[in-house]
Amino acid sequence: MALGKYAVDYEQRVNYDRLRRERLDRAKEQLNKSGAGAIITWDEANIRYLTSYYVTTPMRPAEMQCVLLPRNGEPILFGGGTPSETERRMPWLQGRVQPGLPPFKVVAHNEDHIAVQVTVDIIGKLLAEYGLEKEPLAIDGTVCGVILERAFKKRGIEVIHGKPILDAARVIKTHDEIELMRITCQNSESAFAAIAEAIRPGIRECDLVGIGVKALYQEGADHTEDLVCCSGYNTNPYGWSFTDKPLRPGDLVYIDVDGNSYQGYKSCVYRTFCVGKATQEQKELYQECYEMIYGAISVIKEGATNHDVALKWPDSPQYWGFKDWAEVMPYAVGHGLGLTLHDPPGISRYMMAVGLPPTELKVGMVIALETYAGHKGGKHGVRLEEDVLVTKDGYEVLTRWPVKELMECWLPYN
Amino acid sequence: MALGKYAVDYEQRVNYDRLRRERLDRAKEQLNKSGAGAIITWDEANIRYLTSYYVTTPMRPAEMQCVLLPRNGEPILFGGGTPSETERRMPWLQGRVQPGLPPFKVVAHNEDHIAVQVTVDIIGKLLAEYGLEKEPLAIDGTVCGVILERAFKKRGIEVIHGKPILDAARVIKTHDEIELMRITCQNSESAFAAIAEAIRPGIRECDLVGIGVKALYQEGADHTEDLVCCSGYNTNPYGWSFTDKPLRPGDLVYIDVDGNSYQGYKSCVYRTFCVGKATQEQKELYQECYEMIYGAISVIKEGATNHDVALKWPDSPQYWGFKDWAEVMPYAVGHGLGLTLHDPPGISRYMMAVGLPPTELKVGMVIALETYAGHKGGKHGVRLEEDVLVTKDGYEVLTRWPVKELMECWLPYN
Repeated sequence: MALGKYAVDYEQRVNYDRLRRERLDRAKEQLNKSGAGAIITWDEANIRYLTSYYVTTPMRPAEMQCVLLPRNGEPILFGGGTPSETERRMPWLQGRVQPGLPPFKVVAHNEDHIAVQVTVDIIGKLLAEYGLEKEPLAIDGTVCGVILERAFKKRGIEVIHGKPILDAARVIKTHDEIELMRITCQNSESAFAAIAEAIRPGIRECDLVGIGVKALYQEGADHTEDLVCCSGYNTNPYGWSFTDKPLRPGDLVYIDVDGNSYQGYKSCVYRTFCVGKATQEQKELYQECYEMIYGAISVIKEGATNHDVALKWPDSPQYWGFKDWAEVMPYAVGHGLGLTLHDPPGISRYMMAVGLPPTELKVGMVIALETYAGHKGGKHGVRLEEDVLVTKDGYEVLTRWPVKELMECWLPYN
Repeated sequence: MALGKYAVDYEQRVNYDRLRRERLDRAKEQLNKSGAGAIITWDEANIRYLTSYYVTTPMRPAEMQCVLLPRNGEPILFGGGTPSETERRMPWLQGRVQPGLPPFKVVAHNEDHIAVQVTVDIIGKLLAEYGLEKEPLAIDGTVCGVILERAFKKRGIEVIHGKPILDAARVIKTHDEIELMRITCQNSESAFAAIAEAIRPGIRECDLVGIGVKALYQEGADHTEDLVCCSGYNTNPYGWSFTDKPLRPGDLVYIDVDGNSYQGYKSCVYRTFCVGKATQEQKELYQECYEMIYGAISVIKEGATNHDVALKWPDSPQYWGFKDWAEVMPYAVGHGLGLTLHDPPGISRYMMAVGLPPTELKVGMVIALETYAGHKGGKHGVRLEEDVLVTKDGYEVLTRWPVKELMECWLPYN
């Protein structure tokens, strides 16, 4: 495990050739199993998984870049700026970068719109070149699925929902992916260090978000969104926003370093702090939350199921004072973590109650587990979260920011 | 125009009751025109437009919150945390907040999956309560369109592509939306001020992104993604990422404050700086870019079309040294701006070449115009962008950061 980020000659760090090869191998294996002839994805995480190309802010919401992976070929990237320049920077894509497709998400009203037609023309011709025009096309990561499906169907191309294919590939992390996720978790510690130093009366939730996010970019994060930051009355009931509320003495503050993305890989880590000295009641609430999360972590190992984990959590929404599981769905929850924040498997009592079948945990899965302690109508809430790698004999907690005791900040006052 | 952000008694600022009422009125008008009985949206911008509820990081990519707007009713919000608490904070949603739907995006493989079935059950029952179960349902903002459409069809509910309905509502901004967009543009100036002060040899593109983003959160931004930041060799050809490249003396640096979101409203503003004194060649390139953007702005007024604007730009991709319009699609481009970064209308020579019909500009549209100057194989590129409100007699440029001359930074050296 090499946490240093420079490319160096004196030790082996992330092996990027191997990272790219193993990700693509896993994707192809799942594509072969799926029965689809090809998959086309506009999902930024899947674009990165297949090509290492990274989609940045202006393009992220526009769906103007995509990758086509034919069953019998290599991934073709659309829309990476000037193709010749992209190929120069990314030699592993040599000969497989094409100019962008029309921005159909922005301008198209229906399946007959010119922007959709041009898109379907280009993709249809490529599928024919690979001899795949009679096989199902898996579509992924576009909010225009309804009109694209119709447009492809008019040309005799059957469409299927592509997301499960690459989810299945991504759920087991390779050696290099795990190294990158260790670095992401380390980056989260820089954010917490900056935030813990800044906590004091008067500083606002949004200021703490800015301080944490700046620390992440300084660590080389290539994308970072908002952090969750809730203080005082915003901590009960559980919520996941942030506002311009200023911190006050005696407030609890919980923060989620969840937008953090290092070479695409996310962390999702909640910690709870106190503005000054904590009360006995706050410490007990903290202990309740800590036991809930570590109770669940204790059963993680290869072969255990997501249900085994969820069964360690409260067996009724009444625990938090509510009647309906849906109302407290996020109160104790787990989720796969990787190139996106919420990947399979999902872990929650709510999903068990709805009837979701169990999923086995496997070596190489990375799972975020998050729990909440807070009484209905109470003044305070505590949120904690750890990122955990499933190993053969158990687990490895990737997140190292201290968690055993409620951390009291604004030390000059102490 | 009140740029102060506090709620005050001494002058009229944004009128939030009016903002919410007028947005919802515009949405209902377009829903009535569309022929759909209801629209269901998972798009964070549309959720905000319909309810003022704001979706934050952990929920943004998960599609776990949505709004159903029936033709003959008021919007119903799903998944806003604890419903009773959401209603207390947002009294205008009283009686219309429901717990979350199952996280089908994360766990569902096909239309028969339990998470999809529970979703379709709940929505189907609501449509029946409103007597809308025989009318088309418009679906918006989900990457699961393919499986949702099939699941609804199995229950006899026809699905249509919903995005154009709320796009049509949102394209004309109300008085209060324009006031919020002025504040967003002002916030971008705080980011540029912090960045311009920080530019010096050795600071990295990612550091400048962090500094700019922190300034935005300090201005109360409720969401901010990465900024574009390209320096030196990264400025030619045009690209829109940022890396860990350090700045060097003589580099040009262009930055896009495009992730910026104030109460949901985005800015998209490019400026180009020089690390130290600029050369004559760099100044001339800057002038070329400036004339390109202000040439286009000069024709903006009610009744002009997006084609009229694009016609002010180079009439051949050869201008930038390329053969294919698709390769230089983003080199000179315009787009609507508001609750998302890229809204209709689209403005580009590429889209004209593809055959997109013209769209008339109307009073109340806000448009971002962005241009690039740089020679193929050259060392430098310049990018500029302004956000422009269409008025009866012409336009108002909302972005005020100085633009006429290339700004030389790292002043201690000068």
